[in-house]
Amino acid sequence: MIRHVVLFTFVDTVTSAQVDALAAALDSLPGEIPEIVTYRHGRDLGLSETNFEYAVTADFASEEDLAIYRSHPVHLRLIADHIEGNVADRAAVQFPLVD
Amino acid sequence: MIRHVVLFTFVDTVTSAQVDALAAALDSLPGEIPEIVTYRHGRDLGLSETNFEYAVTADFASEEDLAIYRSHPVHLRLIADHIEGNVADRAAVQFPLVD
Repeated sequence: MIRHVVLFTFVDTVTSAQVDALAAALDSLPGEIPEIVTYRHGRDLGLSETNFEYAVTADFASEEDLAIYRSHPVHLRLIADHIEGNVADRAAVQFPLVD
Repeated sequence: MIRHVVLFTFVDTVTSAQVDALAAALDSLPGEIPEIVTYRHGRDLGLSETNFEYAVTADFASEEDLAIYRSHPVHLRLIADHIEGNVADRAAVQFPLVD
């Protein structure tokens, strides 16, 4: 199993409603992309001032399934509609999940 | 439940053996800090050139348990021994885990 982790910060013009729309779009992905084993995401809780603003953690059975997700049309549409132009910074890692 | 996510990059002088030592130290934390519900971590798989180099995802029942972890002496010793001086960049988010 592989865990794909992405953290985002948003540009200053992004509204809370736009983040809500991103969250709703992310919620729809597991129903559209069967390669997703587990999908968790959410706004940063604000416990630390230096934090990024949003996190996605997604688990896949294999690198192949992760690749299918990354190039899936529904995922690409989400990126075009909710990520592009809205994200100021992005940090990502994919790592093997042990157990 | 809260998921705490931290991504790191390392300074250029950090060796693979030092990353192994960090991984071993991280492996020891759940046995020392009972507030940790689930602890997963690992080196980036190298699927994307812009990725960070290491990820930790840790789940806690509450903000209080996360705070106990963050200030736990075993965790602080790990930071002093394996993070300070070795980490070039850090990105973190804590978000509520739904379900």
